[in-house]
Amino acid sequence: MERLPGFRDFYPEPLPHPDVWSADARQYIVERWRATARRYGFREYDGPPLEPLELFTTKSGEEIVGQLYNFIDKGERPVALRPEMTPTLARMIAAHERNYKKPIKWFAVPQLFRYERQQKGRLREHFQFNADIIGETSTAADAELIALLVDSLRSLGLSEADFVVRLSSRNAWQQFYAERNHDSAKAYDFFQTIDKLEREKPEVTQEKLRSFGFSIDEITAFIQRAEPTAELQQIVDNLAARGLSSFVKVDYQVIRGLAYYTGVVFEAFDRKGELRAIAGGGRYDNLINLISGGRVDLAALGFGIGDIVLLELLKARKLLPSFEAGIDVFVLIEDESLRNRSLALIQQLRDAGFSVEYSLTAAKPDKQFKRALELKSAFTGRLEADQVRLKNLRTREERLVPSSDVVSFLKNESRPA
Amino acid sequence: MERLPGFRDFYPEPLPHPDVWSADARQYIVERWRATARRYGFREYDGPPLEPLELFTTKSGEEIVGQLYNFIDKGERPVALRPEMTPTLARMIAAHERNYKKPIKWFAVPQLFRYERQQKGRLREHFQFNADIIGETSTAADAELIALLVDSLRSLGLSEADFVVRLSSRNAWQQFYAERNHDSAKAYDFFQTIDKLEREKPEVTQEKLRSFGFSIDEITAFIQRAEPTAELQQIVDNLAARGLSSFVKVDYQVIRGLAYYTGVVFEAFDRKGELRAIAGGGRYDNLINLISGGRVDLAALGFGIGDIVLLELLKARKLLPSFEAGIDVFVLIEDESLRNRSLALIQQLRDAGFSVEYSLTAAKPDKQFKRALELKSAFTGRLEADQVRLKNLRTREERLVPSSDVVSFLKNESRPA
Repeated sequence: MERLPGFRDFYPEPLPHPDVWSADARQYIVERWRATARRYGFREYDGPPLEPLELFTTKSGEEIVGQLYNFIDKGERPVALRPEMTPTLARMIAAHERNYKKPIKWFAVPQLFRYERQQKGRLREHFQFNADIIGETSTAADAELIALLVDSLRSLGLSEADFVVRLSSRNAWQQFYAERNHDSAKAYDFFQTIDKLEREKPEVTQEKLRSFGFSIDEITAFIQRAEPTAELQQIVDNLAARGLSSFVKVDYQVIRGLAYYTGVVFEAFDRKGELRAIAGGGRYDNLINLISGGRVDLAALGFGIGDIVLLELLKARKLLPSFEAGIDVFVLIEDESLRNRSLALIQQLRDAGFSVEYSLTAAKPDKQFKRALELKSAFTGRLEADQVRLKNLRTREERLVPSSDVVSFLKNESRPA
Repeated sequence: MERLPGFRDFYPEPLPHPDVWSADARQYIVERWRATARRYGFREYDGPPLEPLELFTTKSGEEIVGQLYNFIDKGERPVALRPEMTPTLARMIAAHERNYKKPIKWFAVPQLFRYERQQKGRLREHFQFNADIIGETSTAADAELIALLVDSLRSLGLSEADFVVRLSSRNAWQQFYAERNHDSAKAYDFFQTIDKLEREKPEVTQEKLRSFGFSIDEITAFIQRAEPTAELQQIVDNLAARGLSSFVKVDYQVIRGLAYYTGVVFEAFDRKGELRAIAGGGRYDNLINLISGGRVDLAALGFGIGDIVLLELLKARKLLPSFEAGIDVFVLIEDESLRNRSLALIQQLRDAGFSVEYSLTAAKPDKQFKRALELKSAFTGRLEADQVRLKNLRTREERLVPSSDVVSFLKNESRPA
């Protein structure tokens, strides 16, 4: 029996097959995201992977249904697996924002689902690091959020040589559009055309732009304008004060595909331009109002970093550590009459926080020792009367330590965390 | 807009409403589970929350469909949200077991879904700590797994006064049934009757038992038999050697509801008997064979601990810590001309691993200080020329430290982890 196409199995390393994913690498990335978010004072939240379908159609219109895992549940409710986290966040904020001081700084690491036509490398689920700031209109919040994005990627070893965050302004595009075209209902279609500029054939783009009343030259001139908007300049200056200038650049080509952005938007890309976007985000000052039916009106902004492109980049830059089993002690049981006392030793070591392995059944001494090496154990331990013979498998040094002193001996000896 | 009934929103503490759940408490529990699994040498895996429906019906028969979130996807595939992890694990093991040394010791922390009729306190999703040992028939594996279960609960502060693991044997029940009733097709219905013994009305149970050819007295005598089976005795002795005797007892009343158990089964309960089962598990030596269509035949056993009953118990025993924001430094910006240099300080501190907060916009000094207290910051820091005035908010001591020494000063001063 096979898993569904577009879904992933995560195995412990070393990986058994190129077609499966590393549970260790995923956990490593998620832990770095979490630690970075906490350094920035962000708190964790989570919501249901299954939501009322209406939560997503309210935000994105009925067109989105074609890309969802949606169905009618046994209570006759139209439901969908979440394709993104922001609507759930907006719903949760609208329900209980009064209990939290503003600005609210929250993060989550949800798994997200989209029914996309199968293409090479396109999956139907991914994990995403979502961080949002709610209740602050100042560009200081945009800068704080972008700094978190930069540091989340830096925490994985990526440098300014590896990625850049391209900053742009949906506001500026909105204004540019409105000066030439008064049909505001078509603005979003226009933005989508701009969003596809780098991927679409030039003749298709030109034709589309003409239908909105724009020439490609006008668009190029707008993108290449010399001056950033005042709000972008503030963000760039703020990031410069943090020493993060080299990680960002203003680039009006970025506009973001989603309908709900209202202000600054940004995307992170690999510097070589070989991969799809690593991350994207922006301001969505109207969404909470929309989701809450006008009950709650709070400025907001956020970003998402997906795990898939990021893993590609980390692999390409050789920034993923090797994830060995790496236990602390392998207890050798060479005499079965010592098994019960060895179990007591194992329990004592595990209680003290060490990771401990041993052979569940009787096995030849050399086979046990080989297994200790395979598991990259730091030490082997073997009972001898009231003492334990500890062998450091790196230095090959041996020491006989009284049973009662084993824990303190290992705490002094063990590799620094 | 509301979340779906039976699903949970997880908020940062302090919780805004009794109807929502703590993201912090969940993360705390999951981290303890992970750390304990690693001490036992278990490696993490994960699989898709959405699987082919057939994966679950193969194992549990068509009856299970009534309890699933199942639907037809846009590719005309019958699919279901996973109600348990074991079929996914069996599928993954069957696919790639040859690449892993036996016994395989793996764990996962999946979210699981069941469409149950809404009842008070019954939810439609929960998180579960799953741990399994694959490829070992010896009862030494059963003991190792049960020890992990005990220590996973102990790692949260629960003691032998709080919970007990009741051990039983599906084998013994199977044999007892077969001696009196030769209709093996009905054995599973009989087991289900036994499983409901504690919850069902006595007259209903008696009637059902009669239909299988058993009297209630025979059942009572079997449950109260003096001698554990040989395999249970081995497990009890093994756990005694680890010093874990007080956490387990043999209790033949336990039989487990699932069809696929083949040997030892067990459930963990609170000692006061006020809550539903905290955890359950057992041997399922035939399941991988079944799921793999006879391709792979490996003995296996596992358990699951759900987060919901466990949280109830931890709350009742007051074993959940308080989850405050708890940052390291709140940087006070009392003079806006120092904002840029303060941002550089903030970046320096975060780069060094400290969690740092500050006011995104200009605010009165006393408001900033109040916020630092609310966030339970360990220190405030304020730039003064080339120095930083650090105030320990617990002792109220102040120190002027050169900017270049702030990180090392705080590393020495900061609260032990």
